[in-house]
Amino acid sequence: MDPNTIEELRGRLRHLEDESAITRLIMSYGPAADAGLTSFAGHLWLENGAYDWDANGTPHQGSAGVDAMLQSDGHQNLIAAGIGHFAGPLLIDLDGDSATAVNYSLIMRCEGDRFYLWRVSAVRWYLARVNSRWKVRIRTNRLLDETGAGRELFGDTLTELFVEAAT
Amino acid sequence: MDPNTIEELRGRLRHLEDESAITRLIMSYGPAADAGLTSFAGHLWLENGAYDWDANGTPHQGSAGVDAMLQSDGHQNLIAAGIGHFAGPLLIDLDGDSATAVNYSLIMRCEGDRFYLWRVSAVRWYLARVNSRWKVRIRTNRLLDETGAGRELFGDTLTELFVEAAT
Amino acid sequence: MDPNTIEELRGRLRHLEDESAITRLIMSYGPAADAGLTSFAGHLWLENGAYDWDANGTPHQGSAGVDAMLQSDGHQNLIAAGIGHFAGPLLIDLDGDSATAVNYSLIMRCEGDRFYLWRVSAVRWYLARVNSRWKVRIRTNRLLDETGAGRELFGDTLTELFVEAAT
Repeated sequence: MDPNTIEELRGRLRHLEDESAITRLIMSYGPAADAGLTSFAGHLWLENGAYDWDANGTPHQGSAGVDAMLQSDGHQNLIAAGIGHFAGPLLIDLDGDSATAVNYSLIMRCEGDRFYLWRVSAVRWYLARVNSRWKVRIRTNRLLDETGAGRELFGDTLTELFVEAAT
Repeated sequence: MDPNTIEELRGRLRHLEDESAITRLIMSYGPAADAGLTSFAGHLWLENGAYDWDANGTPHQGSAGVDAMLQSDGHQNLIAAGIGHFAGPLLIDLDGDSATAVNYSLIMRCEGDRFYLWRVSAVRWYLARVNSRWKVRIRTNRLLDETGAGRELFGDTLTELFVEAAT
Repeated sequence: MDPNTIEELRGRLRHLEDESAITRLIMSYGPAADAGLTSFAGHLWLENGAYDWDANGTPHQGSAGVDAMLQSDGHQNLIAAGIGHFAGPLLIDLDGDSATAVNYSLIMRCEGDRFYLWRVSAVRWYLARVNSRWKVRIRTNRLLDETGAGRELFGDTLTELFVEAAT
């Protein structure tokens, strides 16, 4: 059997498996944040990773910082009142043991007998494979509001990934 | 050629194909429910499956029960007024011929010249492969409201799938 | 090594890779439209493709037409005020060098300190592989409102893809 053929097939499989593993990583965050599984959610990040959650906020530092934010009264009050930290489908760009993903984050809050869209953000995920497991290195959220912060994040990321790559 | 290598590659492919088939199954429900394709939507379930749609409701029993619910005046009035039964991206955990998936369900209703979020639910899908086809065994929806029902469903499911598995 | 086995494995891989490439194509549109990357967004379409965006509108013709729409004052004002062109997860049906996909489009607009759902549409994508790259041939959006246009689009497409195929 031709070892090159086997290597080709294994490489293509690994690429698809990486996309699946990254999807699994990112789609775990919202349900864990909503449920208050703070340590589990924090450990989706690298110890020295970051969650840069808003243009006007201080990034949460590493898995411990994300865990602490989720344990805070602010977050606990939100989940007690009813909230969904929804993540949209991913646009993934793999590069060996690193990857970039782009999606939308919608935070929906309960209000009487309906829900409302509180925050709608552009999100960029920088991911890394460490000890065979994908982890979040830096998650950056920017609101898609009149400040243009979300537009800029989407624009910069797509330009880096696709527009420049194609030229 | 080494039959072990072929079996390894086939097994990894099957895993990814199962995720794709499950995505296809679940992403069929919303458009079918919105369009009133009641029999098609019902047959996404096993004959003896269940749709446990709310903490305060009686589960719909099997494909016939889901079909009947979608034929009811209640559902038909909703779709006549304008509605979207939106399903978010899946977190899938495969285990041979069984699988568990977690996602968000958003029900959006038309109101004048805009739409509103009527129900935002945590969803757990228990799935089974029967005669080579994936089907829904039990779908459970719980609102992400102040009752905490949705948080509990997400928490229990993630704990079972991931937190306990990792310890 | 048995060439049939290799061809079987390559074919199955290609199928999954096509689904991944189509996801990447479609999930690029929203972020590009929000960011104002008009030429990049336009070139997701075939030169002679179409974007049939509403039952009461005139379709945008080809990549140039999509680019021009995104450059228009109407679109530029929307993105300046804060907007998200969100695309939901895909239901994909592959057929060689053609494919059909179905999903939901949600357009969310910023209003004070929250966002609202402006348009919720059923979407059908006709896709084609040209020179080894997937492109949009025709995207059709129909509102899920009381006119029934969205229901009809979902119903016709699912019937064509699944219900008729199963009989």
